[in-house]
Amino acid sequence: MSLLVVGSVAFDCLESPYGKVERALGGAATYFAVAASHFTHVNLVAIVGDDFTSKDAEIFRGRTIDIEGLERATGKTFFWSGRYSENLNERITLVTDLNVFADFKPKLPEKYRRSKHVFLANIAPDLQRDVLQQVTNRPKIVALDTMNYWIERTNAELRETLKHVDILMINDFETRQLSSEHNLLRAAKHIFKMGPSTLVVKRGEYGAMMVDKRGVFCVPAFPLEEPHDPTGAGDSFAGGFMGYLASAGKANDAALRRAMVYGSVLGSFAVEKFGLDRLRSLKRNEIHARARHFAKLTQFSL
Amino acid sequence: MSLLVVGSVAFDCLESPYGKVERALGGAATYFAVAASHFTHVNLVAIVGDDFTSKDAEIFRGRTIDIEGLERATGKTFFWSGRYSENLNERITLVTDLNVFADFKPKLPEKYRRSKHVFLANIAPDLQRDVLQQVTNRPKIVALDTMNYWIERTNAELRETLKHVDILMINDFETRQLSSEHNLLRAAKHIFKMGPSTLVVKRGEYGAMMVDKRGVFCVPAFPLEEPHDPTGAGDSFAGGFMGYLASAGKANDAALRRAMVYGSVLGSFAVEKFGLDRLRSLKRNEIHARARHFAKLTQFSL
Repeated sequence: MSLLVVGSVAFDCLESPYGKVERALGGAATYFAVAASHFTHVNLVAIVGDDFTSKDAEIFRGRTIDIEGLERATGKTFFWSGRYSENLNERITLVTDLNVFADFKPKLPEKYRRSKHVFLANIAPDLQRDVLQQVTNRPKIVALDTMNYWIERTNAELRETLKHVDILMINDFETRQLSSEHNLLRAAKHIFKMGPSTLVVKRGEYGAMMVDKRGVFCVPAFPLEEPHDPTGAGDSFAGGFMGYLASAGKANDAALRRAMVYGSVLGSFAVEKFGLDRLRSLKRNEIHARARHFAKLTQFSL
Repeated sequence: MSLLVVGSVAFDCLESPYGKVERALGGAATYFAVAASHFTHVNLVAIVGDDFTSKDAEIFRGRTIDIEGLERATGKTFFWSGRYSENLNERITLVTDLNVFADFKPKLPEKYRRSKHVFLANIAPDLQRDVLQQVTNRPKIVALDTMNYWIERTNAELRETLKHVDILMINDFETRQLSSEHNLLRAAKHIFKMGPSTLVVKRGEYGAMMVDKRGVFCVPAFPLEEPHDPTGAGDSFAGGFMGYLASAGKANDAALRRAMVYGSVLGSFAVEKFGLDRLRSLKRNEIHARARHFAKLTQFSL
């Protein structure tokens, strides 16, 4: 089934102890779309500047990603530059140039409007809501990511948008900030009152945790000896998660658990190399082999 | 099969946002023994002062815990006082009075010397080694806990003791400190060269991870809405882990995975109330019910 994503497409300058890349294609919507395209057809809504070349667009063209919704504006594409600490557990943002992204007003092409699955990547909450209003009929699943910036500065807008969201997919810091509650179970109860019925907490090297009215499901992060670049791990997780759900066409407990695993699989591949390098070359059999590896990592019999 | 533990028995003064207890029986060996006694017979080696009353010893008497090895010395029992932060994720030590523990020279009663499973709780590495030397024949499994104090101040002694250890059971901070390596997989490889063939990393609210030559196994922490007191969680984990292994009488991959789960089960109960209050009243059917709950928390089918 069709999966709509709205978010950023960006150029990243990335630096980690493993090297440096000056102009890597990145952005939440890019990571999400590439990850999800391993499972389903993706409709992309984003904006780029006139420095975005036909060669840059190749990443989308070879896949089941529709870019009719990729607006081209005069000016430069969103640019982000960051440096990771020696252990990759801290990130310093060096430059954030919003460029054409500053005036982004998402417009859904007609054929996107019947999308049954929607992922609202981390952008201003009023834009997220605006996208939802352009979708004809209520989608089956709406998932949303956000960040401290929006929680702090546009809290009322975010609360309004959350009323229309099924799955909130944020990290543990954001969960605690949004709910004003440290304990994640109690935080989930607060968040359920805001609209979402499912909370997915991304915990970096500790994996991810899903809470809904049926209970809790946890999946560890895949242990890697040499992660190279954490950029886009959360968006790749979201892409694997939503891509699987859209392809499965159902969202019962078993499907949501599998979505958590496929999200973790895509997130783990994303960090293996710089930027999109690993997701770009990823094969379906590698995805399934790693999912089976997750089973080995977690399964026991009593 | 018999399980020997050497470590501290202490009185704790505990303070958390949920209340305060002035004189709670505690200490690593106490938590370990009570947790392990739900699975197997435990031989306890520790020292107490003359303030340790017959009433204090009741916690051991009602269980399969042999206290012939509990030495009584003139003076006061080890006393520890600590305060937890609002979210229980930080601990301030207010008082550490070693008292009779300062001159502890563990002596194994004759009948303990054939113990097949040994847990060396967090005490000076030379004392840990001394205990091992008193055991007749090589035990099937020797597990060890330690802390930053010994890693920093008696590193050579610790390295010597580790040569005789099968399972090292420490937290992630200690793992990184001992191995001088941030990445836990690479840290495990360093540690395997020191002696242990299995590394169990206790990660608090993030659960636990086991690494051996076969690979990695992860178990999450049990999500609790109202943990009251984290004291003794790691020792209760070790007690559940080693207690299960001793009762199973084997240590293949399936048994070690179950040990990780039972360790997590006991650790999760320990934090539900102050001190030993929850472990004290724990029933076997509650342990098995929670182990099944861990399955629900982690299992998926692809």
